[in-house]
Amino acid sequence: MASTDKASPRDRLLDAAARLSYRDGVSIGVEALCREAGVSKRSMYQLFDSKDEMLAASLQRRIPVYEARFTHPDPQAASPRERILYVFEQLEKGSVDPGYHGCPYLAVLVELKDPGHPANAVARGVKEDLAQTFRTQAERGGARDPELLARQLLLVFDGASARAGAAVERLDDKLATVTATALLDAAGVK
Amino acid sequence: MASTDKASPRDRLLDAAARLSYRDGVSIGVEALCREAGVSKRSMYQLFDSKDEMLAASLQRRIPVYEARFTHPDPQAASPRERILYVFEQLEKGSVDPGYHGCPYLAVLVELKDPGHPANAVARGVKEDLAQTFRTQAERGGARDPELLARQLLLVFDGASARAGAAVERLDDKLATVTATALLDAAGVK
Repeated sequence: MASTDKASPRDRLLDAAARLSYRDGVSIGVEALCREAGVSKRSMYQLFDSKDEMLAASLQRRIPVYEARFTHPDPQAASPRERILYVFEQLEKGSVDPGYHGCPYLAVLVELKDPGHPANAVARGVKEDLAQTFRTQAERGGARDPELLARQLLLVFDGASARAGAAVERLDDKLATVTATALLDAAGVK
Repeated sequence: MASTDKASPRDRLLDAAARLSYRDGVSIGVEALCREAGVSKRSMYQLFDSKDEMLAASLQRRIPVYEARFTHPDPQAASPRERILYVFEQLEKGSVDPGYHGCPYLAVLVELKDPGHPANAVARGVKEDLAQTFRTQAERGGARDPELLARQLLLVFDGASARAGAAVERLDDKLATVTATALLDAAGVK
């Protein structure tokens, strides 16, 4: 639990929004959110314009922790191939958590059919960051078509995340890294 | 529109459930569903035990049309490789529809965090059918590890569906078939 009695009402709301929307979906009600955070609805609406804005802020706030998880601990020493595969190893590691429901940003993109929702923009940004990481490493690694490889790796990342999150697939036998490896080989990344 | 004035209340409800849940997500309310179907709530609860049961029935009812779309029109003449790639070509074709929100069965799996929901079982079954198709063709095509290849192809299928459905990717340059081709080649499928 990230929220403690000492956390501000704002932080408690952001923690509750992140936790409940991840566990139950983005359609969680304002009542449930405020109850979980121990904050009145009146206070919530003083802090945020809407539930949508609060959800977007809660997703935004988690980006640094999310992105750090997928960044190789020794980026200077690691080869481009190792840096790409590290992303998939971390995905596999995270997927065995009993509370795993897939990538929270992908879930938001699938659940929110409205591209104008403020949380949608946050999630798109996170996906674009990962695409950029893949592209950069694909270029450094000498991929024949770095843009194509980056897009292929994202299909695998999001497919693995969605399927493992929905418990129709398991990644703990390295399915994601094995698949990414086949695509790296096909693209000529050493 | 599949529903007409001549359709039974049951069929109108099933059409409305399929249409609205696909467009707006599985959390659509009973009121909106009944309004769209032109059926009273009282009648709805005479026909279905719950909204969840109605949603499951609406997904179940669409399976034959969904699966037919991904079945090669000449399965006897087509090679295993062609039959597998046909699935991805059809995915790409469908993804350019302005109302496309990805595979409806994957969306349900991502949106419903509760594995005990009756619609979850329907969606799992559809995914298992596709896995079986991929496995069978992978075996016939001489894949080194048909089970692994089938699982890899599903990562690509669901990743492409989720990303195109959320409008963070486009498939109309054959991204899905190109990626599936790389995996077929890596698996040694002729």
